[in-house]
Amino acid sequence: MTIANSSRPKPRGVFSPVLTPFNPDLSPSVPRFVKHCRWLTGQGVGLSIFGTNSEANSLSVGEKRTLLDTLLEAGISTDRLMPGTGACALTDTIELTRHAVAAGCAGVLMLPPFYYKGVSDEGLFRSFASVIDAVADPRLRIYLYHIPQVSQVGISMGLIERLLKAYPEAIAGIKDSSGDWSNTETMLREFQPQGFDVFAGSEAILLSTLRGGGAGCITATGNVNPGPIVALYEHWQESDADARQQALNATRGVFQKLPMIAAMKAAIAWQTNDPAWATLRPPLVELDATQCQQLTTDLQACGFSMPDAASLAGPA
Amino acid sequence: MTIANSSRPKPRGVFSPVLTPFNPDLSPSVPRFVKHCRWLTGQGVGLSIFGTNSEANSLSVGEKRTLLDTLLEAGISTDRLMPGTGACALTDTIELTRHAVAAGCAGVLMLPPFYYKGVSDEGLFRSFASVIDAVADPRLRIYLYHIPQVSQVGISMGLIERLLKAYPEAIAGIKDSSGDWSNTETMLREFQPQGFDVFAGSEAILLSTLRGGGAGCITATGNVNPGPIVALYEHWQESDADARQQALNATRGVFQKLPMIAAMKAAIAWQTNDPAWATLRPPLVELDATQCQQLTTDLQACGFSMPDAASLAGPA
Repeated sequence: MTIANSSRPKPRGVFSPVLTPFNPDLSPSVPRFVKHCRWLTGQGVGLSIFGTNSEANSLSVGEKRTLLDTLLEAGISTDRLMPGTGACALTDTIELTRHAVAAGCAGVLMLPPFYYKGVSDEGLFRSFASVIDAVADPRLRIYLYHIPQVSQVGISMGLIERLLKAYPEAIAGIKDSSGDWSNTETMLREFQPQGFDVFAGSEAILLSTLRGGGAGCITATGNVNPGPIVALYEHWQESDADARQQALNATRGVFQKLPMIAAMKAAIAWQTNDPAWATLRPPLVELDATQCQQLTTDLQACGFSMPDAASLAGPA
Repeated sequence: MTIANSSRPKPRGVFSPVLTPFNPDLSPSVPRFVKHCRWLTGQGVGLSIFGTNSEANSLSVGEKRTLLDTLLEAGISTDRLMPGTGACALTDTIELTRHAVAAGCAGVLMLPPFYYKGVSDEGLFRSFASVIDAVADPRLRIYLYHIPQVSQVGISMGLIERLLKAYPEAIAGIKDSSGDWSNTETMLREFQPQGFDVFAGSEAILLSTLRGGGAGCITATGNVNPGPIVALYEHWQESDADARQQALNATRGVFQKLPMIAAMKAAIAWQTNDPAWATLRPPLVELDATQCQQLTTDLQACGFSMPDAASLAGPA
C-alpha cells in the first residue's frame, strides 16, 4: 500500500553514510555490509547507505540495487533507510531513486549531477524536476546533498527555494556538508521553519544544528563512534551537552587528520581483528603502516572503542 | 578472431566527441545519432562517441551500450570508433570498456574516476590497472583522457610513465584537453617517441601537435566544422597550413564564446531546420534566444555552413 508523505513521520536523528566493505577482489562484501548495518541500527544510527563515505560513486547502479535488496531481505527496517541515489547520469538517478522509493525507504539523499561544472541553477532545477516527475511516487522524499568541496556543484538557496515551491511534498530537506556553518545557519533560518529538514553534514555542528531547530546529522564518523553521537542527539538539551560535543570533536579530529574513509575502515579492521575491512576500491587507497600506527595511538588516547566489534568481523 | 594490437594500425587523425541528440522526452534520439555519425565519418572524422561534449556523463552505461550497438548494426566501421568508457565507478568502466573492446573498437578514451578529489597517483594507477586486468583482452587500447578543468582529476606525467611501464600494449595514448600547451608539449617530447600517441584536445593546437609529432586531435567542433579540420590534418606540411589553422580558430572562437555543447547543438538545429537537435539533457541547458541570435550572426560572418546538413535532420 502506498502511504503519502504527509502521513508518515519524517526521519530525524543521527544517520551515517554506511561504509561499504569490499572483498580482496574489490567486490562488495555483502555479509560484512549487512552486519555493519545491523550494528549501526542497534546503536540508534540511521542508514544513509551510498553516501560519499560509502564509496558509492565507485559502485554501479546494479551493485547498489543489489546491496539495498540484501538489506531488505535481511529484515533491516526501511524507516531508517536513506540511500544516496544521485549520480551524474539522469537515468541512473531515476533508476536508483525509483528502486529506493518502491522499496519504501524513508528518504533518499540526492547529489546533483556532478560531472559538468559551472552549471546553472536552471539546469539543476531541471535535473531534480526530471527525477521527481519520472519517479512520480507520492512517497518520494528527497534530501538534497550539498557537498561542494567534493561534488564541485553546490545547492544554492535560490535553487532550494524554487524546488520547495514547485515540489513541496518531494523536497524534504538537505544534508549540508559544506563545512560552512554560516551556510547551515541560513538554511535553518530560511527553510527549516517550512518543514525543510536541515541535517548537519557532520557531528561537529550537531549541537548547533539542533539548537537552530535542525533535524539531526548525517555523519561519516557515525560508522565508528555511533553511541556517543546518538547520546548527544538524545541529550542535547541537558547541561552536559557542550561537554559531549567536545568529546565527539576530539574523536572526530583523529579521523579527520587522515584520509577519512581509509581511516574509518582501518579502525574497524583493528577493532574487529578483520584485516579485510581495510580494503578500499580504487581510486581510494588504504592507510599506510605509519598512518595506521598514528590512528591507533590517537584513538587509544581518546579512549576509543567500538562496542561489540566482534559482531562486525567477516566474511561469513 | 582476436587480432593483437601490434598487428592493427593505430587510430590517427581527427576525431570528434560525437554530440548525443535527444528527443523531447530526453531519451537519446537514435536515428539522429546514427545519421550524425554517418555524416562525420563521411567527412573523414573518427567517432569518439561518449566524450564530455557527448553529454556522456549524463547517460547510463545501458544507454551507452545501446547506442554503440546501434552504430554497429548500422554498419559503422569499428576502425574509426573510440568510445569514451571512463566513469566514476570502477565496475561501470569495466563493463563499458569490455563491451567496446569485444565490439572491436579501435580504442577507448578513458576518464579517470572523477568523483573523489585529491586522489593519489597510486589510486589512479590501481583504477586503470584494475580495468586492464579485468578486461584482459589483447585488443584493449586505452587513450587516457586528461581534462582536469572538468574532471578535477588529472593524469600526471608520473602516472603515464608508470602505466606505460606496466601495460605497454594497453596504454596507447592520451587526449590532452587541459588547454595547457606546455603540458601537451611535454607529453609529445617525453612519451610520443615511445609510441604513446598524443591527441590534441582541440583543433586550436592541431598544427602545433602535428609539428611536435602527435597523432591528431579529438575535438568538439569536429561535430560542426569537420571538413576544414580534416583538411588541416591532411595538408599540415603545406605552405598554407598556418592560414588554415587561423581560419579554424576563428570558427572555433564563435562556439567557445558560448556554452559550447549547447552552441554546437543550436548550430546543427539551425543548419538542419530540425529544432529538436537543440535539446540537451539536464544539467545542461539550451542557448537562450539572444545567444542563438549571436551564434548565427557570428557564424554567418565566418562563412560557416555544414555541407549536406539536410541529411542530419530527424527524427526518422
